[in-house]
Amino acid sequence: MENGLDLQRILDKTAEDCRALTGDGKPASYIPELATVNPKLFSISAATLDGAVLSSGDTNARFSMQSMSKVISLAFALERFGHDDVFSKVGMEPCSEPFNSIMKLEMTSNHTPLNPFINSGSIVMAGLIAERLGESALEEVLGFASRMTGNKRGLEVNERVYRSESMTADRNRSLAYFMHSIGTLSFDVERSLDLYFRMCSIEVGTGDLAVMGATLANAGKSPATGEQITSLDNSYTVIGIMSVCGLYNESADFAVKVGVPAKSGVSGGIVCAVPGKMGLAVFSPPLDAGGNSVAGVKALSGLSRQMKLRGI
Amino acid sequence: MENGLDLQRILDKTAEDCRALTGDGKPASYIPELATVNPKLFSISAATLDGAVLSSGDTNARFSMQSMSKVISLAFALERFGHDDVFSKVGMEPCSEPFNSIMKLEMTSNHTPLNPFINSGSIVMAGLIAERLGESALEEVLGFASRMTGNKRGLEVNERVYRSESMTADRNRSLAYFMHSIGTLSFDVERSLDLYFRMCSIEVGTGDLAVMGATLANAGKSPATGEQITSLDNSYTVIGIMSVCGLYNESADFAVKVGVPAKSGVSGGIVCAVPGKMGLAVFSPPLDAGGNSVAGVKALSGLSRQMKLRGI
Amino acid sequence: MENGLDLQRILDKTAEDCRALTGDGKPASYIPELATVNPKLFSISAATLDGAVLSSGDTNARFSMQSMSKVISLAFALERFGHDDVFSKVGMEPCSEPFNSIMKLEMTSNHTPLNPFINSGSIVMAGLIAERLGESALEEVLGFASRMTGNKRGLEVNERVYRSESMTADRNRSLAYFMHSIGTLSFDVERSLDLYFRMCSIEVGTGDLAVMGATLANAGKSPATGEQITSLDNSYTVIGIMSVCGLYNESADFAVKVGVPAKSGVSGGIVCAVPGKMGLAVFSPPLDAGGNSVAGVKALSGLSRQMKLRGI
Amino acid sequence: MENGLDLQRILDKTAEDCRALTGDGKPASYIPELATVNPKLFSISAATLDGAVLSSGDTNARFSMQSMSKVISLAFALERFGHDDVFSKVGMEPCSEPFNSIMKLEMTSNHTPLNPFINSGSIVMAGLIAERLGESALEEVLGFASRMTGNKRGLEVNERVYRSESMTADRNRSLAYFMHSIGTLSFDVERSLDLYFRMCSIEVGTGDLAVMGATLANAGKSPATGEQITSLDNSYTVIGIMSVCGLYNESADFAVKVGVPAKSGVSGGIVCAVPGKMGLAVFSPPLDAGGNSVAGVKALSGLSRQMKLRGI
Repeated sequence: MENGLDLQRILDKTAEDCRALTGDGKPASYIPELATVNPKLFSISAATLDGAVLSSGDTNARFSMQSMSKVISLAFALERFGHDDVFSKVGMEPCSEPFNSIMKLEMTSNHTPLNPFINSGSIVMAGLIAERLGESALEEVLGFASRMTGNKRGLEVNERVYRSESMTADRNRSLAYFMHSIGTLSFDVERSLDLYFRMCSIEVGTGDLAVMGATLANAGKSPATGEQITSLDNSYTVIGIMSVCGLYNESADFAVKVGVPAKSGVSGGIVCAVPGKMGLAVFSPPLDAGGNSVAGVKALSGLSRQMKLRGI
Repeated sequence: MENGLDLQRILDKTAEDCRALTGDGKPASYIPELATVNPKLFSISAATLDGAVLSSGDTNARFSMQSMSKVISLAFALERFGHDDVFSKVGMEPCSEPFNSIMKLEMTSNHTPLNPFINSGSIVMAGLIAERLGESALEEVLGFASRMTGNKRGLEVNERVYRSESMTADRNRSLAYFMHSIGTLSFDVERSLDLYFRMCSIEVGTGDLAVMGATLANAGKSPATGEQITSLDNSYTVIGIMSVCGLYNESADFAVKVGVPAKSGVSGGIVCAVPGKMGLAVFSPPLDAGGNSVAGVKALSGLSRQMKLRGI
Repeated sequence: MENGLDLQRILDKTAEDCRALTGDGKPASYIPELATVNPKLFSISAATLDGAVLSSGDTNARFSMQSMSKVISLAFALERFGHDDVFSKVGMEPCSEPFNSIMKLEMTSNHTPLNPFINSGSIVMAGLIAERLGESALEEVLGFASRMTGNKRGLEVNERVYRSESMTADRNRSLAYFMHSIGTLSFDVERSLDLYFRMCSIEVGTGDLAVMGATLANAGKSPATGEQITSLDNSYTVIGIMSVCGLYNESADFAVKVGVPAKSGVSGGIVCAVPGKMGLAVFSPPLDAGGNSVAGVKALSGLSRQMKLRGI
Repeated sequence: MENGLDLQRILDKTAEDCRALTGDGKPASYIPELATVNPKLFSISAATLDGAVLSSGDTNARFSMQSMSKVISLAFALERFGHDDVFSKVGMEPCSEPFNSIMKLEMTSNHTPLNPFINSGSIVMAGLIAERLGESALEEVLGFASRMTGNKRGLEVNERVYRSESMTADRNRSLAYFMHSIGTLSFDVERSLDLYFRMCSIEVGTGDLAVMGATLANAGKSPATGEQITSLDNSYTVIGIMSVCGLYNESADFAVKVGVPAKSGVSGGIVCAVPGKMGLAVFSPPLDAGGNSVAGVKALSGLSRQMKLRGI
């Protein structure tokens, strides 16, 4: 692996090259608050397993986790409730439908979301957490997320994004009411959605996400603090699902281009866990048709080849 | 990584432990010839990137590639026709339906198979090869497969399996006629299927498959002969699709349990490419409900943890 | 056609025979208020085109229209907004999915409900009426329904049923939010649903429904009052859709057994329009698996044969 | 009802008016032999229940039954094997998918065709007849069809159409192989399809079809010969399914426009059974997007209003 100086140089070069790509694609517009972002922002960070965090670009940029929070809620649920409990509520299967598809829920015999990284599956995770932890649910998830990202001041919900998200959530409401009608979501619909929207609205920077990726890449032990955030087995589970389901129906395309476990969000962020090597995160708002950051995928593809992140 | 002596010991221990599991699951029965196999056979092989091949168990067992041949046909088509040509005929998306599902073909607007590792996608690959290469198609594919597996005597089609396969292929015929009706399969249906069945019936041992995996794991260069079998880019493509689509709708489950790119076949074989590290192959006929070798998955799961194949 | 005395005798005999069948099937239970009904109630009415209304059984029984109100909302919308306006919002196709299915909405390219008699289609009708008529929507629909059923005191919403319906409407909420997310339902979700639930909760007896059927059977002119309630063309439209879509996926089964245009509701009612002959209505709460009254279908099947309602 | 003179005048006027519409739509082209027809042909016939047959237009035009033969195969199977036997093989449900759709077969739990009037359902009928009657199957079906159409010389298969059909039947082959793979079609695929194609290729004129419709409209008793061709119950079954499933997903549209039980074929024919009144048939090759004769639907719509065929 590269030493720190080389790695910084690689990140700087990547930021320089890929910033030019921020003219391609379009920022998410279905959540009004996301559409107000500056599309030219670009930030990239790497967190090595010895605790270093290197960044380049608009490193102060803050953005909401969106679907990257599905990694948090899955890891949190696995730690709190155990593997069997979690996977009695959601499946562990690839998904060929878009992230917000509802028809699979009706077509499959058990009406269970295919995996915890599509919207329906993550709403079920939110419902489970909200039901079991009651009033303290959000606080506990935020604490877990802060420790997993090594963020000492503590992560918080961006209230403007949360309100925007909650008000424009027809499709997620449809998914939640459908799942409640068939018993897949046992907890109250609006309270489940409320936690889901708040988790999506947790505000981070690429430095936070890189440490989160590095924690998973380090078998669950934070390289920032040395704390064991998830068990080894739970890190295998989260990383495994990231590798197959992390970029929705572009997951295979990403596996070909980049080849490392990752999770994207419609805010334009992508977090990667390169097992045994490092965590990586990138942020650039314009998205491709599949809802993934155009410049982000490009940057990670280049880094993967240059640093042989997949092993070759 | 372990040295040769340690690796042999690990394989021996795995063979010993996992042979006991061959009572679970059931060999494939829908192809009559596959049902005649001895369900107690168990074989495992590893091929390192320095050219060594180590095996344990019933190392003389020969079996048909079945869906593992989809790796061969994809790699062959990529080398001969190029990435863009190939992916104008099939998609590169995960699949939540069973391997022989037809409804997605009708539901999607372009009627293109989701990826080259489901039956419909691989039939399209076979049709493409048969159409372009004419009479020499099978011979060329066999030559390519022999070089990719490092098999010096040359791989051959098991004629009994081929005939059995061809006679009990209602579902594959249905897929092929459907695709022909909508133009997705442009070549003659029966000739496309004929090459497809013959490729599925190519006979191998775990040693052959381990070298095939090692070739991909070595960026396309055979560790057995030093020959560049596929380009670096094509090895990325094949490995990437293996990691997301290699075990059908159990792909995510396998990513959690084993975490390395792989492809299974209903004969009971599984081939793995661990990039930068080694190729692995296992054979044990009894299958789980998803059509994957029970003892094979178990063996690979143990090896992956013991040798930290995913990096952690 | 039979004279009045014969017809009364036929109804009495039918009531006597079919009351015995009220032990089969089960009243709807997903709306709690419907589950409180006496399952042994049985009522049947016929309204001839010369204005006579004959009834037998528990003729004072009152029940909610449920899906039979879809006839009212379609007829009302056709009269107020015209054929082209209405059928730019919903389709006119048979439906092989259950009445509350959502997946077709996602699968079809224009995301339009297949017809106005499945829940999604009728919610769109309710949304259209609520949007166009504002505060007076319910009052106008009730007025129209009263005239169509010849009910002089005026039909009213059963408030207990309405509240029960509104509180247990997960699936309908899911449908409405889904359609709002894709633009198929343009009006406010909760206000659209509110009118939909209130229309479902309009309370009637079989006498009311028989006159409603007779009005359609009389080319839109009420045999009770002589008023032209719908145009001839609109009566063709409503009757045509009743004949193909009136009993959901049991519509063909009903066409074989009874062979006249009809619409059922989960309260246990069925209303029939026998063009040029009469209106018929039956009420018996226990339902078959398809959501249609067991004794009701049986009674109508017998009447159809005895009175040659389909012409033979 | 009109007397013979009036009826002939109505048919003549209809032929004159609707012939002008034969420029709209396009003849079926997927079966090459059908594309060779003269698109300007127009023929219409009515058969009254007292045995008269009146025709107008190109009354000598002969064409293949295509999907109208599904009425023959259903009626034949009902008479030979009984209602319960037939409906253990196919369903009795409306269908919202196109006539040659395959996905419903995979999606439904019992993999049974929705009804005997979609291609899959009719192939199952053909397989049942071919299996039970062996070598004499075609001869017996032709005999039955001849009696049902009152054709004294005997109906025959158009060999050119049959060969054209058989050679361009990818989609039907796909359906048949799919159903054979899951056991829905128990008989040999190619022999089932062969009888299916031959039945589709039976050559008729509108006079034949009108008598066939009149036979069903007369409770199964031929007005031409007085022979009871089907039982009363079987006539109810065939007519009921015609009214809900006769024009595929345009069945509701046709019920609104015409409002009588009917069955169409891609050769451009439509046969109607007006229970207790008459049989009607029309022929004009150009089809709408749903595969139904443009001028044919128009002609029947006019006749229905003029003669109050639906009762109003």
